Amino acid sequence: MSYKNFPMVSNVMFGRGSFNQLEDILAPKRINTKAPFIFLVDDVFRSNVWITSRIPLAYDDRIIFVSAKEEPKTEQVDALVEEIILMTKERPSGIIGIGGGTIMDIAKAISIMLTNKGDAKDYQGWDLVKNEAVFHVGIPTISGTGAEVSRTAVLTGPDKKLGINSDFTPFDQVILDSELTKDVPKDQWFYTGMDCYIHCIESLKGTYINTFSETFGEMALKLCKEVFLEGELSSEEAQEKLMMASWHGGMSIVYSQVGVAHALSYGLSYLLGTKHGIGNCIVFDQLEEFYPEGVRMFKAMKEKHNIKLPQGICADLSDRDFDIMIKISLSLDPLWENALGPDWKKIMTPEKIKSLYQKM
Amino acid sequence: MSYKNFPMVSNVMFGRGSFNQLEDILAPKRINTKAPFIFLVDDVFRSNVWITSRIPLAYDDRIIFVSAKEEPKTEQVDALVEEIILMTKERPSGIIGIGGGTIMDIAKAISIMLTNKGDAKDYQGWDLVKNEAVFHVGIPTISGTGAEVSRTAVLTGPDKKLGINSDFTPFDQVILDSELTKDVPKDQWFYTGMDCYIHCIESLKGTYINTFSETFGEMALKLCKEVFLEGELSSEEAQEKLMMASWHGGMSIVYSQVGVAHALSYGLSYLLGTKHGIGNCIVFDQLEEFYPEGVRMFKAMKEKHNIKLPQGICADLSDRDFDIMIKISLSLDPLWENALGPDWKKIMTPEKIKSLYQKM
Repeated sequence: MSYKNFPMVSNVMFGRGSFNQLEDILAPKRINTKAPFIFLVDDVFRSNVWITSRIPLAYDDRIIFVSAKEEPKTEQVDALVEEIILMTKERPSGIIGIGGGTIMDIAKAISIMLTNKGDAKDYQGWDLVKNEAVFHVGIPTISGTGAEVSRTAVLTGPDKKLGINSDFTPFDQVILDSELTKDVPKDQWFYTGMDCYIHCIESLKGTYINTFSETFGEMALKLCKEVFLEGELSSEEAQEKLMMASWHGGMSIVYSQVGVAHALSYGLSYLLGTKHGIGNCIVFDQLEEFYPEGVRMFKAMKEKHNIKLPQGICADLSDRDFDIMIKISLSLDPLWENALGPDWKKIMTPEKIKSLYQKM
Repeated sequence: MSYKNFPMVSNVMFGRGSFNQLEDILAPKRINTKAPFIFLVDDVFRSNVWITSRIPLAYDDRIIFVSAKEEPKTEQVDALVEEIILMTKERPSGIIGIGGGTIMDIAKAISIMLTNKGDAKDYQGWDLVKNEAVFHVGIPTISGTGAEVSRTAVLTGPDKKLGINSDFTPFDQVILDSELTKDVPKDQWFYTGMDCYIHCIESLKGTYINTFSETFGEMALKLCKEVFLEGELSSEEAQEKLMMASWHGGMSIVYSQVGVAHALSYGLSYLLGTKHGIGNCIVFDQLEEFYPEGVRMFKAMKEKHNIKLPQGICADLSDRDFDIMIKISLSLDPLWENALGPDWKKIMTPEKIKSLYQKM
């Protein structure tokens, strides 16, 4: 393995109801009264007073509601940065993301783009960010993807779906309040939770695995099983455990990698805009040959929760469409190498990828 | 539970051999050529060229060998700070601790005392530190105590054994290279590893337990069992797993607490200077009434590794000696409350504590 130096989330607060501590956390971080806090809040909470009334607004602080119906895009980040610059007298004191993985990634990306010149697409890659980001806080309202703990802000750009991976990307503060996840619709709960489960299988079965990632991955996997398969938990326990699964699952891939499911799912997202969680599920459902045990358990979880995955999403695609998805997917070398070893290109040919997509 | 905001280690590097990356990690942190890096290295490595030759010294950088035979003391920290101030032209660029929990705690405390006035004893407690510490790096060479991940620097002062708990205490950088633990003597390996095991039992069986701490504690406990009881690991695997157990065990007590063993062990350390790991073992061996299952497993581990604990260490103590230990131990309210609930004073009377000490 290579010796990566992983930057961690600087501060974490855990506990049911801890969202109420937000004002106390932010107060010492206010630079001055002209430098506001900008709250990026998932659009689904627009009329949810239980959440919005607890967002502590003062001076020029603003809430911006952001739709998470689509995967986050570089141009969306650029537009929001522009909007924030225009609406504020001074550089914000902080960016606070309240939502799922999409909002987490947008909040991370905006905090970086407020202090770095150019467009978000210029920073898709590894360690391209020059300047420290604006103070940024992540408050997940759905569990699984692990964006609250990761070193990346995954964005779809004009050329690629790729994260802004940098030492400045991780949140300065995360609040883990499982109560915020209590109203997640069941399908979304399943798809996002399965993102964590699939991470773990890909990480644990990958060639990059090591003791660090293994211990986090096993813990997350155990929690996913408790939540999705064993099902003897109160809803509160299940919410807390899934929130911790998301955290540990995110930590697991710090020193390992994801694999076949993520590599194919990125192609779907890029071409069809398929959301990451459901995309991973659609792909993983077809991967029994690569992850036999993991896929069997996935199918059992799917059945237990009576989840019907969309079928035939690739049925009407042209050869050119397939080529686009194949190109995106094949560009993700580390994922393939982790999944299939250094000779992965012999196994995962364009034809093989096409045949897999054709089943979806 | 209360909503603590926990500061994490800023950066972590993991991997066998990652100690070789130290130069690359430090280089960008050098303030100028007059502001040296000070390496605090456990005295046992004085003639260990395998370690010392890989410490990257440049300009005015210095190694200070520190004995870890005794528990770290506030006056020892003050003396080292004085020594560092006298030997350096400018405030150091960084403090790097290379050793076990004692060295970790001393390195954390020194980095704080270089930027905060007064004596180390003035900062024993919670959130008394005013100024950000000097950049500090922890490189553990023995696993179990979890000092590499904790928010405290435990010190014995003139009046008490208590940590400097602050947001500035955690390391800015930790390097987890299990190869550095390969030559730990067996007894010490066992005692320090058991510190982790005992943490986990106390945390998981405590009244403060919650999902955050539970997931970390269970993972650490599983790893301890694999290392100390199941014994089917290569020595390299065992070293890696114990290093991760130490990390997870440390994280587990972030949001929970330790319990009876630590509370009594602190009394032994204060009066007799008993090292923390062995002290915890001596105490825990007598706690079957509080942790029946945990103590049974401890005894099995002890037997498997043919460990003979010191006997009769309290045999020759005077009533006054017992009173001192009892006072120190009873002052640790949160530990007792975690272990025995809010009415702990009814259970854990001075007489009861004395009877427990008398067995040791």
